Parts: sequence; C-alpha cells; structure tokens
Amino acid sequence: MTNQRYRSVDVVVVGAGLAGLSCAHVLSGRGVDVLVCEARDRVGGRTDSVVVDGETVDLGGQFIGPGQDRAYALAEELGVPVFPTYTSGVHLAEDDSGRIRGFRGRVPRLGGLSLLDFAQAEARFERLARTVDVEAPWRSRQAEWLDSQSLAVWIRRTLRTAGGRRLFSTAARLLWACEPSELSLLHALFYARAAGSLRTAMAIEGGAQQDLLDGGAHALAVRLADRLGDRVRLRVPVRRITYGGDGVVVAVESGETFRAARVVVAVPPTLAGRIVYDPPLPAARDGLTQRLAMGATIKCMVVYPEPFWRAAGLSGYALSLRGPLAAVADSSSPSGRCGVLVSVLEGATARRLGGRPAAERRSVVLEQLAQLFGPGAAHPAAYIERDWSAEPYTRGAYAALFPPGAWTQYGPALRAPVGPIHWAGSETATRWYGYIDGAIRSGEAAATAVTSM
Amino acid sequence: MTNQRYRSVDVVVVGAGLAGLSCAHVLSGRGVDVLVCEARDRVGGRTDSVVVDGETVDLGGQFIGPGQDRAYALAEELGVPVFPTYTSGVHLAEDDSGRIRGFRGRVPRLGGLSLLDFAQAEARFERLARTVDVEAPWRSRQAEWLDSQSLAVWIRRTLRTAGGRRLFSTAARLLWACEPSELSLLHALFYARAAGSLRTAMAIEGGAQQDLLDGGAHALAVRLADRLGDRVRLRVPVRRITYGGDGVVVAVESGETFRAARVVVAVPPTLAGRIVYDPPLPAARDGLTQRLAMGATIKCMVVYPEPFWRAAGLSGYALSLRGPLAAVADSSSPSGRCGVLVSVLEGATARRLGGRPAAERRSVVLEQLAQLFGPGAAHPAAYIERDWSAEPYTRGAYAALFPPGAWTQYGPALRAPVGPIHWAGSETATRWYGYIDGAIRSGEAAATAVTSM
Repeated sequence: MTNQRYRSVDVVVVGAGLAGLSCAHVLSGRGVDVLVCEARDRVGGRTDSVVVDGETVDLGGQFIGPGQDRAYALAEELGVPVFPTYTSGVHLAEDDSGRIRGFRGRVPRLGGLSLLDFAQAEARFERLARTVDVEAPWRSRQAEWLDSQSLAVWIRRTLRTAGGRRLFSTAARLLWACEPSELSLLHALFYARAAGSLRTAMAIEGGAQQDLLDGGAHALAVRLADRLGDRVRLRVPVRRITYGGDGVVVAVESGETFRAARVVVAVPPTLAGRIVYDPPLPAARDGLTQRLAMGATIKCMVVYPEPFWRAAGLSGYALSLRGPLAAVADSSSPSGRCGVLVSVLEGATARRLGGRPAAERRSVVLEQLAQLFGPGAAHPAAYIERDWSAEPYTRGAYAALFPPGAWTQYGPALRAPVGPIHWAGSETATRWYGYIDGAIRSGEAAATAVTSM
Repeated sequence: MTNQRYRSVDVVVVGAGLAGLSCAHVLSGRGVDVLVCEARDRVGGRTDSVVVDGETVDLGGQFIGPGQDRAYALAEELGVPVFPTYTSGVHLAEDDSGRIRGFRGRVPRLGGLSLLDFAQAEARFERLARTVDVEAPWRSRQAEWLDSQSLAVWIRRTLRTAGGRRLFSTAARLLWACEPSELSLLHALFYARAAGSLRTAMAIEGGAQQDLLDGGAHALAVRLADRLGDRVRLRVPVRRITYGGDGVVVAVESGETFRAARVVVAVPPTLAGRIVYDPPLPAARDGLTQRLAMGATIKCMVVYPEPFWRAAGLSGYALSLRGPLAAVADSSSPSGRCGVLVSVLEGATARRLGGRPAAERRSVVLEQLAQLFGPGAAHPAAYIERDWSAEPYTRGAYAALFPPGAWTQYGPALRAPVGPIHWAGSETATRWYGYIDGAIRSGEAAATAVTSM
C-alpha cells in the first residue's frame, strides 16, 4: 500500500476481527475503497491460533453450530473445511466433591433432584427468553422488570435446590464468562434468544459447539485478510476520530491520518469508548460504553501426541462443578496428528488464577485433566493459554456483558450511528450476539448500512 | 512555567479536580516538585461555576456538611466562608399526581402508610450499612449476597407499599443519579456507610447538604490552583502513561511528555481507563474501569432578582415524586444580591431530557418550579444548566456507580497502585465517597502514599 500521509478512502474500518474483516470484505466486493486499521500485529480479534507440531490450535473463538448460517457460508466461501466436534463415547461429570461419573447424551448424572430443579428452571428461562425482542431488548414486554435484576437473583429465586443453583450458575459461567451477579437477567435472556435458545447455546450436537473448523476458526480471519491484501494495515491503533458533515479523519497512534466518508468501529464497546472522538460522542453512546464490560476468560489448550481418551472410550467432553475448569472438550483436528483438549477458566476463577504465575495455572489445569482423563493427561506435548482480559486490544471474552439497567437505560445507543460513525462487532448483532457468527453478521450489516446512506 | 519538551518532576498529577489539586497542594507543601496536567481550560473537575449578575453560581458539587472535616478545613485554610443552606419556612412536597403540600422538618407528608414503609426500610438499610467494611467492601460479612443484587431488587423485596417504593427509589435517584436497577445493593450500603449513614447523606441540616460556600465550592479549586501557580498546566489531556521500575513518562495530547518518579491519576475510573498505559495495566485494574460507569445528572441553576419564595414563607426546599426535578433547594448566597434555586435532573430523567433541545429542558424545569413556588418562578433572571454526562472530561456525575458484582470481583483493584501509578479521586475515598470531602481526602491520601514509598 502506498504510504501517503493523508490517504483518502471511502470507508475506514477500525479493527480486523471477524466483524471488521467481514465488513471490509463485503464493501470491497461492492467496489468500495476500504481501509482496515488493526492495532495488533495480527488479524482475527477474538480468534487467534498457534501451530503446534504442525497442528493449528485455536486460542480464541472456535466453535460454530446450526443456525450460524453466515459462519458456515463464510467458511465455505473461504474453503475452510468444517468437521463435527468429537463426542463419541462416554462424557464425564465431576461433582462438588470431585466424584466423577460417566454419562451419555446431554444431561450429566449429578443428583436427580438437582437435575429436575435445573430442568424446570431451564424451561422457565426459555419461556421468558421468548418474550425478549432481540432487535430492541428494551422494548420487551417486561423489560424494566427483567433488567432490574441480576441473573444471580433470578437463579436464587427460581431454583429450589443448592445443587440446581450450582448447576445453573456453572452453566452461566460457561456461557458468559462472568459470575451470575454481573449479568442483567434481561441480557441473559436476550443472549439466549439471539442464539435461538439457552439449550442451543449450551449444546454441542445441534448447538453452538457442534462443529469446528479444520485449520482453526482463526483461518477465517487470515483468509479474509489475504483477500483484502494491502487494504488491511497492522500495528495502527486508532486513537482519534474527528467527524462532521463531510466525513471523518481517523488518526492512528503514529500520527498518520486517514480521511473517509464513513468509519465503521468494529471493536468491543469498552474499547470503542477509549478512542477520542471530536466532537465528543453524545452522552447516551458514551454512557453505554462505560457500562459494557467484557467477560473474563483464560483459554487453556492442551495438546497430546494423540487423543488417548478416545481409546479409553471417553469422548473428551467433561463438565465439572468442582473446577477450576467447568468444562472440557475434544478439539482435535481430523488429521489425527495429535489430540487436543480445549478448556476455559472463566469469571471469578479466571480473575483469581489470572493473577497467579503461569506455571501454577498450568499445574492446576493439568491436575484436573489428570483426575478426569487419567494420569496421561498430566504430561501433554504442549500447554498453551491465552488470558483475554490481559490483551490490551480485547480486554476480555467472550463478549460484552450488560449489567442490570444498561439495556433499558442505554440500549438504543448500541447500534445507532453517530453521524458518519457506524458500530459493528459481535455485540451489535441481533442474532448470535457474542459468537463468531454474530461478528460476521454485524460486519455485513454495517457494510450494508454505510453503502445505503 | 518553562516549556521544556522533556520536563522532569517528582510527581505528575493527572486531573485538576479537587482530588488532584489537594494532592498537589500537600506534595508541594512538603517540597515535592509536582506538575498537575489538566485536560480542560479550567480547574475544578466536578466543581465549576459561572458569575451571574455579580453572583457566583455553582454548576457542579456545592454542598458540604458535618463529618466532612477535610472540606471544612480546606475552606478555612483557603479563606472561603461557609454559610448554612437556607431552610427557614415551609418545605414543599409534590406527590405523583402533582398535588403539593407543605411540611416542616425532615419528613414530607406523602401518605402515612408509604412513610411508615419508607421509615422501616430506611432503618433496615441503615442496619445493613453498618455491616459494610468501608476499607474493603468485598470483605463485608455478607458481601457476596449484598453484591449479587441491585438496589431495585432490594427495594421491591423490602418495601410493601407502592408509595414507599416510589419514595425510596426517588431518594436513590437523588443520591446516586441513576436508576435503582443500576446499582449494587452493596455499593449503596457502602456509600451510605462512607457518609456515616443514609440519613446523613440525605439530610440538609445535620447532613451532607447543610452548608454552602460563599463564592462557590469551585472557589476551593480556583484558590488551590492559584497557590500552585505554574505547577498546574491547563489544556493538556493526558493520553499515555509509560511506566516501569525507573518511573513514568506522561504524554499529553500535543505530544509533549513529562518524566516523573510517580504519577497520581486523579480522574474518574472510567476516564482513567481511557488513558493508554504502556505496559498495559493488569486485567484486574482494567476490568474495574470497564465496570464503573458514572451517574447521569443535568444540574439546573435558576437565578432570580431575589429569593422571592422566602417572603411567601417558603424555604425553597421541595421534594417531588412527580418530577422531572426530584428536589429543589435554595442556594442563594448571603450577599442578598439575588435568589438562586438549585435542582438536578437525574438518572433516566437526565438521559431522556439530555437528548432534547435546551429550550425544552428550560421550559420543563421552569414550569415545575412555577407549580411549586408560584408563577414568578417561571421568569428567572438566568437559567444555567450543565449536563455532566456530555462533558468529555467528566462523563457523568455525581460519581462512579458499582453495578452488581463489581465490588466483590474487582474491588481490590480500586486503590492498589500499579508500580509507580497511584489512583486518586473521590471514588477512591473510604469516607465520603463521591463527595467534595472524599475528593480532598483521596488526594491527601495519595500525596502521603507517593511520599512514603
């Protein structure tokens, strides 16, 4: 790319995650002159990968599932093969005291009364979720009431057994990477509704964890960036957006500036709020970004010479009420070159262990895996982790969380453009909020919005 | 001040609000070479004033009251006279339907059952508040439980009457400038405890609104800045803090940099989170600033040729369940040059009216004042307002709000220094959090911390 100091383009996109890249991809296909400014030295945002022993291992978002049509379509367009998450054999469930039992199907064997309690609460949650307007959650029938309470309060009030509450809270941590106290009930319901249902969001088969991408989900971003070529600039953190009736000037850290008719800011809301806007953004938009904090995750990928658990009749899928890992799954690629277990430390656990030395985290994670899958699990070929809260250009995962009150007080500012400034990112999606598919949808929607005005 | 490009000082203070200025004042008095970098073209932070017809009118924080020892001491040191808020005569209370009744003393006449309900809830709140550890709210006896729920849920569960709930919710809006749904119960309790009690926080006589400063609270900041002279730099927004074992380099918008052994960041947490730190701040500190959003206030100051309500036997103090103003008070100075009514639009009301034209807000406010104090109130000499959420270098008032989960998950990061970076601002105070007095205390505490290490 030419390195003029005041390059002009039609549209600047801030952030080369899947939202920004999808947006630029669509715009570019329509003949729009687009430039993507990425702060990091890599593309992919909340997807990333490393190669271990010739095998690509995802360090960020990786699963896709039915209903995520845009993710499947993009994978097909880019020639990234899809394969099913391995689930053959017996799953494991670890209770509070560390007792491990096998199970098949969707439901672990963790005490009958707790499970019944959980199932009733789940049904009630699904019914409530169907009352949420995904386009405008603040307009849902009982919006004020649903948004006035945390998910923790709802769990305490709805479930009767301590075991059921622990189960529901663990599910919440898995889905949102936060404590149930941090989340508005309305947001939890919206999120489930945007994914179809809570069950879809939680499930492997038939749900959001059904499939994996051969070569990694990060390959989607890499291939999109390849197609965009020099329209993607790395290592250019956007620090200031000056805007008015005649367009925008986007200034990056080095002082270099880009002029455009419009800008699409495709980074998490909390990071969008850290850019300097001139003139300052309206109070409603700024107030929104003050409130949408990210979940806390440390993703732990453990690579073995082979998926040894399969030979023992185990699926590699495990749920644990004891932790620190609440869930583990097999994400080995079809190549058969090695075995990979994926797991994530979430919410309070991620915060606590995130402050400890890496060696301690590794040892805690491997110890739990050994208890679940046998002593062989304690000796991997590689242990790779990524604390997404420590990444300055992400600052948490999986997605932004709406605390109580935020949707009803600030929701309308989430997607509304401010003059020539448009907003994208998985948080602006009305379907699959927080997922890879939502990111792609949001980028495509922003591309349509900026070209239709 | 000399304008070297790489000026070196002992301590850089970010923000010339009362926290930053108090810090610099103490440091300077101890012979420490200090430089205060202020983004705006004025000092004072959340205090500010204008002069109308020779009279100083406060557009930000203005009241002080018993227990705020540092505020009184500073006013005395700086020669700013204190005078009692005018409360002689009859107060007014407007109910939901706009019916207005007079009252004397603390308690409005708004339906006996509602008041009884409110009084019982208040007593219960005070008892709970006494269980909170103000130094470390996350260590309070029932911290997890108190922090898992919004104040809205507690109000709904604790109060029995619709009238009582409305009354408590209105009190909450007055104190925290947000909807009760946005606030963690633990935070509300902590705040009250840090002020002594809920009753102290709410009261005029014997409480946080007891006294005013002749010449305005903003005069404290102006006089501190006068004493500091060229140690205060205006129009230098701090954009980057590079730090390490040998100190800090603070870079301002123009590119100018200042070296120091330590830096005290004395701005609201959400704004502190928008500075670029190199290396990036730990996840715990960043996660905190992602969560602490500011309350929403539009302060409306209405100036009349004289305090005409006094002649009618009215105190100028009014409470309203109907709104849009929830409370009005007399803040005329002892000079007798004019009459001033102070009022604030808060929370949802501020958000709604903040998006409307200024003329509409003016007319809505004056209409309500006319209903309360008679038609004369509709024709002021001046109407001056300040939307603190729209100010890029404040972004809300009165203070940062902890949503559910934030104190227990991120509380320890609020005051903990990160290497040579210290934090000040009213939000870091353990007494009078969110008040002028808390700001002064926090600045003085930071000054002690940076000199004792």
